[in-house]
Order: sequence, then C-alpha cells, then structure tokens
Amino acid sequence: MVSLVTRENWSKRFGEWFRNVLINAGIMDYRYPIKGCGVWLPYGFKVRRNILQILRDLLDSTGHEEALFPLMIPETSLAKESTHVRSFEGECFWVTQGGFEPLKVKYALRPTSETAIAPMLKLWIRSHADLPLKLYQVVNVFRYETKATRPILRMREVATFKEAHTSHATFEEAEAQVKGGMEVYKKFFDELGVPYRISRRPDWDKFAGALYSVAFDMICPDGRSLQIGTVHNLGQNFAKAFNVTYETKDGKQEYIWQTCYGISGRGIAAVLIVHGDDHGVVLPPKIAPTQAVIIPIPSKEGEEQINKTCKDIVSKLKKANVRVETDLRTDLTPGAKFYYWELRGVPLRIEIGPRDVEKKEATIARRDTSEKQTCKMDELVTVVQALAEQMAKDMRQKAWQWMKSHVYRIENLQETKKLLEKRAGIIEVFWCGKAECGHELEGKINARVLGIPEDVKEKVDGKCVVCGQKAVNIVRVALAY
Amino acid sequence: MVSLVTRENWSKRFGEWFRNVLINAGIMDYRYPIKGCGVWLPYGFKVRRNILQILRDLLDSTGHEEALFPLMIPETSLAKESTHVRSFEGECFWVTQGGFEPLKVKYALRPTSETAIAPMLKLWIRSHADLPLKLYQVVNVFRYETKATRPILRMREVATFKEAHTSHATFEEAEAQVKGGMEVYKKFFDELGVPYRISRRPDWDKFAGALYSVAFDMICPDGRSLQIGTVHNLGQNFAKAFNVTYETKDGKQEYIWQTCYGISGRGIAAVLIVHGDDHGVVLPPKIAPTQAVIIPIPSKEGEEQINKTCKDIVSKLKKANVRVETDLRTDLTPGAKFYYWELRGVPLRIEIGPRDVEKKEATIARRDTSEKQTCKMDELVTVVQALAEQMAKDMRQKAWQWMKSHVYRIENLQETKKLLEKRAGIIEVFWCGKAECGHELEGKINARVLGIPEDVKEKVDGKCVVCGQKAVNIVRVALAY
Repeated sequence: MVSLVTRENWSKRFGEWFRNVLINAGIMDYRYPIKGCGVWLPYGFKVRRNILQILRDLLDSTGHEEALFPLMIPETSLAKESTHVRSFEGECFWVTQGGFEPLKVKYALRPTSETAIAPMLKLWIRSHADLPLKLYQVVNVFRYETKATRPILRMREVATFKEAHTSHATFEEAEAQVKGGMEVYKKFFDELGVPYRISRRPDWDKFAGALYSVAFDMICPDGRSLQIGTVHNLGQNFAKAFNVTYETKDGKQEYIWQTCYGISGRGIAAVLIVHGDDHGVVLPPKIAPTQAVIIPIPSKEGEEQINKTCKDIVSKLKKANVRVETDLRTDLTPGAKFYYWELRGVPLRIEIGPRDVEKKEATIARRDTSEKQTCKMDELVTVVQALAEQMAKDMRQKAWQWMKSHVYRIENLQETKKLLEKRAGIIEVFWCGKAECGHELEGKINARVLGIPEDVKEKVDGKCVVCGQKAVNIVRVALAY
Repeated sequence: MVSLVTRENWSKRFGEWFRNVLINAGIMDYRYPIKGCGVWLPYGFKVRRNILQILRDLLDSTGHEEALFPLMIPETSLAKESTHVRSFEGECFWVTQGGFEPLKVKYALRPTSETAIAPMLKLWIRSHADLPLKLYQVVNVFRYETKATRPILRMREVATFKEAHTSHATFEEAEAQVKGGMEVYKKFFDELGVPYRISRRPDWDKFAGALYSVAFDMICPDGRSLQIGTVHNLGQNFAKAFNVTYETKDGKQEYIWQTCYGISGRGIAAVLIVHGDDHGVVLPPKIAPTQAVIIPIPSKEGEEQINKTCKDIVSKLKKANVRVETDLRTDLTPGAKFYYWELRGVPLRIEIGPRDVEKKEATIARRDTSEKQTCKMDELVTVVQALAEQMAKDMRQKAWQWMKSHVYRIENLQETKKLLEKRAGIIEVFWCGKAECGHELEGKINARVLGIPEDVKEKVDGKCVVCGQKAVNIVRVALAY
C-alpha cells in the first residue's frame, strides 16, 4: 500500500496520486518488467469492462459493428500511405524474427489500424450498396514511446484502444460521420461525467494521413490538458494508397471516403482523474463494479439480526439490479472497511448497526460528498436508486464547473504565459490563422496549440496575439500531456 | 460467395467446407496479408462474444477473476523455466526493434502467459492468506507456425485464447484445481453441445514446464482428432524458476503450486464443426446472435397485415428475451432469405404468410432438422422457447452419438492401423505404459497417442498391442490435427 498524497498538494502531485491510486485501488499494476506495459487487475478490469460497455452500446446503436483485425501489420502495408508511415515508423515495435529465422518482411505491432483494415476493405467493398461500412474494434495498440511513460496516460502497450473505422460513398457522408463520431464521444464522456473541450487540431498536429483531426481534451488537476479522444476525416488518402474503390450508381469507379475515431485507455483514466479525491477514486454508479456496499456494524447482542438484515437488503437490491456486496470480513474493523471501499470509489455505503435494525432504518453514505442520511428500510431500494442517479448528476456538474473555471479567455501573450506557468488550465486567445503565428505562439508560451473550438461557435472579433493582425479564429492553448 | 461442398463428400473435404463456411457465413475472413492471421467479422464476432460469455460466467462463478497482462514477454523472463523456453523459443514471434533502434532485450509475443504472469505473482503473493489466487484472461497469443496454417484451427495469431492461471499453497490444492478446471471445461463444452474425450497426455507430449497435461479432444467429420482444451498441473516448476514463495501458517517460506488451463479459438471452431452441415453452420440457441428470424412471405393483398403481425411477434419475443430479427429486405425472395439465414445457422425461422395471418398461426422451421410446424399465434413465445431448448438437447445428443460411434476399442495393431487409414476416429488400445512402446506405437500406426482416459475409469485387462506384455492402461490414438 503506497500512501496517497493529501488534498493540499493533490493538484501539484497529481502524477504521484494517480500512480498510487491505480495500484492501491486494484486497478493497474505498473511494475511489469517492460517499461510502459501494465497489468489490468481484476477490479480495474471490471471498471474497464463497464466503461467499454457504454461505448459499445453507443456504437452498436448507431450502426457500427464490432470486428477484430490482426495485430501485426506488414511493413509493406504500413508504408502505402506516405504521410502515415513517416509519422509512425519511428514509433513502432517491429517483429523481425519468427522462431530462429529472420522474417522476409518485418511486421509492425499496430500503432493504429488503418493499414490493417484497408486491404480488407478492398476485398469487401465492391459497390455503393456496400457503403456505408462502419466497423470498430477494442484492441491493444503499441507505441515505442521515447518520452517518459506514465501509467495508462502514456503506455507502450495501450491495452484498451477503441477504434472505429468508417467508409462512405461521398465526402459529405464522411463529414456527417465525423459529426456522428463526435456525438458518440460526447454521449460517452457525458455518461462518465467527464468534461471536455472539443478543438479542431491545427494542421501541423493532425493525424498522419487525415484531412483534419478533431480532439477531445480534458484538464487534469495539475492544470495540464489531456487528449482523451480524437475524430479524423481521412478523406480519400488511404483509399488512394490502397486503391479501394466502389462502383457508383451510374457505373463509375470512385475511391471511398473514410473517417476514423479512437479513444485509448485515457478514456478510463479520465474518469478516475476527474472524480478522484485524496481518499481514492470515485466511480460514477453506472460503471462501478460494486454500486453499494453493505457494512455491518458489529455488536455482541444483535449480530444475528444484523446479518439477517444485511441479507434481506442484498436480495432486495439485487432484485432491483443494483450491484451490491456485503463486507463480512471478520478481521477488519468497520473503519478499515470504510477506508477500503472509499479507496475503490464504491458510490454508496450502507451501514447496518444494532440501532438501525431496531429502528428498521439504514444509514447511507455517499462517496462523492461523504454525506450520510438515514432511511426507512422499506424505502431503501428507492433511496439507493435515487441517490445513485443524483450522485451521477452532481459528479458531472461539479466536474464541468471545475473545468469551466479553468478555461480563460485572454487577449495578450504575457498574461497567457503567466497563467500557463501557474498551470491555470486551457487559455483561449485570438489567432490570425497563419501557421507561422501558431508556431511562434507555441514557442513563446512554451505550450501547445490545441486548436480551434469545435464545440462553441462564436463570432471572432479581436487581434492575433502574435502578429496583431485581425483574428479569424479563437485558438486554445495549454500545457499538454 | 464460395460454394460449400455437398453432404456426400463433406467428411472428406471437411477442410474445404470449413474454410468456405467461415467466410460465407460472415465469421472469419482469412485473406489478411499475413499468413495465419484472420479477421473476425461482425457476425463471427457476436458468436465469439456469446461463447466467451458462457466461459466467463463459468469461471467467474468458480472464484476466477479476469485480468489482462501485457502482450510482450522479455526473453529474460521467457528463458527462466528451461523446459518451457526450449519448447517455445523456436515458435515465438520476436520483437527486436523499437522505432529505428534495436532493443537491448528482445521481446516475445506471448505464446502463452505463464512467464508474463509469474513476475507479477512474485509481487502479489506474500502469505498463505493470498492463496489461492485464480486469474484468467482472454487474449491474442502468437505462434510462429511452420506447419500449414488453417483458419481458426492453426493460426499464427490465435485471437481468442482463454487462459486461466491459478496459484495454491499445496500440491493437493493444485490437484483439486486441475479437476476444477476440467469441470469448468466439461460444462463449457456441454453447454455448446460439443462432445469430447478427456485424456491424460503421455509424458512426451505434455505442456512444456508442466508435471502433466490433460486434454479435451473432439473428432472432426474427417475422422481426425482435434485438441480443443488443455488443463495442466505445473507443480512448482515456474515458482522455482521465478522464485515465487509464500509464508505458510507456521512462518516458513514455500514455493507456490500452480495450474493453468486454456482453450484457443478452437473452442469456437468446435461448435461450428460439430453441428455444421452442407447448408452451413448450425448454432446452439444459447450462442446464436439471432435466435429466431422472422421472414414475411409476401402477398399483394395482405402485406400490411403481414408486416403488422411480424412487428407484434418481434415485440412479444423480445419481451421474452429471445434475440429476434425480421428480414424485411425487398430485393430478396423468401427462398434466398431462407438460404441466407440457414448458412448463418440461425436456430429458428418463423414464416408469416397471408394464410398464417388469417388463421392466426405461424410456421416455424428448425435449423438442425429442417422440421416445420405450425403453432397458434398466442402460443408462439412458449413454442419458440420450448423448441430452442429441445434443439439444444437434440444437437448435443446427436453430436455425442456420432462421436461415440467413432471411438473404437481394438486389440491388435493391424486393425488399428486399418481403421486409422479409413479415418475412423479415435481408437483405444491396451498399453503396457512404457514410453518405448508408446513411441513405437506412434511410428507403426503413423498416428498420435492422445493419452490415457481421464474421463472413463475402468479395470484394464489385456495385453500391450506393441510388446504383448500385460497392459496397465488403455491408451487412445488418432490422426490428430
């Protein structure tokens, strides 16, 4: 057990907090013999599964179908789209040897799957009737990171990459799908209570091979931004590289139009980071493996009655589809049990002591606010369900408020720089739209241009913070992970 | 669309049938640019998911917890257990390069995960209170196969490896867990209606690093046996290699005892192979993505009524948790739709024509027997549920009967050899138990020793088919995949 950091220095020592909470709460063990690879522990695996289920439901209900493509990509495939390969070849793990023999063509461990999927699309897509084709998969992807790795946030094996790949007959349909992908991700993060800003990345920071990239960023407690999801319009770049065409209604051959969008393990990290506190993680009820834990408060006389009451509650709550557990361990005090379940973020704790049994009541504590309340036993199910719902809402609202209070609109460079040095969050400034000014901006503030707002549209009336010319855009900047 | 083979030559051309049915039924596309790697298609993925759910439920309800370990294993870890590494190093894909740099230590793509897990067990297990520890994961594993690859049956990327790894305080507990693992697998295959023989593999064919291995084998339509699951007692071999010890109740340090058991993609292939026919696959209702398909039989007058009836049925069946779909495609005749859904193995077909609407009846056809029956509309849900249950039973029974009729007890070598040449199935012969005789047996019949019956215990009274000495065991032999 590694101690968590205290609330006072939480934001400054957020990295340490996160690393410790992952192992203490039984989510991920990062001590694997290969740097940047970690083990998803049983409790973390359940959280992961519940989070994945939300995304799977959203994708399934919007016409996406889950599939599973091979891990290894021949260098010859990866190399077909020239921008793509230039960006990724230096970041790939390469399989060069089979048994004791060198391979004739080396294989990349997929860093992303466009070039694993394209050769199959070529086989599957013949005519306009085969389009649109919307696939997704949940897989491990690999990056030979040379930067310092961080648990979940920057891994060499990203064990939970959720990537969608869509093919369309026209540019317009692909454009609509980019919006569709963004809608799915908005709903996904809203469900998790994770606040975000959506920005169109500057041209120099788009996905290699895309026409443009749109990204979801959140703000970490230490004021740095974290990219948690991306949506790309690939245009016909991969279609041309792999010669994937379809027959139009009037018998012509056209290249397909593609989009892709993905969320890495950061989609899970985001929930833990946004809602966590110095007692551990706080899980939104929908994804909590255990939504309510019952803790008997021991007493010599009433033990039998207390255990019976606990059993009754469990069966009632289970019937109402609440994921509930009773902590009957005899070697731990109630206080130690409280600590144990708080660390793991279980939304509701139900305490049953002799007085509760007597009064036919239960004491319920919320993980997010620590508020306690008593309720009549025969109202317990209703109260638990209402509390869970309220908690999800409150967590989302609190998180959004916090984030909004960390987004600033600033009109000059100096103040922008100061705020970033104080790790204030995301700063919005006016920009003339020229790449030179963008690069100069990044250099001067020593931070990253996240891009142009895609979530909020407004009339721009100001001057570029770099050149002083008329601004055509708002642009967001931040210290980015 | 590749044509299936006809029933007459099905058993001889089973390999061809299997390859074609996988792609025609939308299960796996094997045309990926790397040999031995395939794509799980959306329909196949759903079948896979439903099959995995059965195993996950069985493992979860017997104290196993799902986790997820890294894919890459450093050569230094793989090499710790000497028997293990000797067996696997020539079969591994090796990652030797990160970006443009050679790696200092090369990494194997896991061929199985004992050596990925052991270093973590060393961190997690301190005392007897930490035992037993029963973990499992569902992952892709890799073998650099030099033999001819076959879709699902012999892949270089096994995309669906379900592996359990357990740690115990004593040899006896590990022994009991071997039985426990076997029980889980029996229930799993029983649920799928897949018949098997369980044999203890001869010493020369056990898992590298195990004390002994027990395997589940089925018989393919071509008379060859197929290993579909294995359970191993690892003893303390890996514990000693990785120095994984625990403190006993009386304060001593002891090595842990381990077992592991796994089922590859063959667990899925088995269902398709065992129940398939020359119309395609036949899925047990429990794993069918669509359990009943409703096909309207068009008619000029009654169209509106027919569609309304179909809708009513869908909503009734969905309420009863039947996975149901209506095929409303207008460009296909009913006959073409029958063919489409038969190929995909959908258990029940419900036809609704004008006469059915008039009589308030429905016509239901079973996929396994092609039997049709009519039933009153208000009994439909009950009839569908009863038929699904009956179908699962009948499929299981039929498969077991077929298998049993392909297991022979033979007392001399010549007849054994003849039967194997005719691809008759599994042959049981008497054996003195000596390895020399085992090897000689394999050489003379040009087949494989599967091992000693673990499922049927009987008194042995006969003479070794090789040396003529008193037999101590029955031993099973077969042409094995």
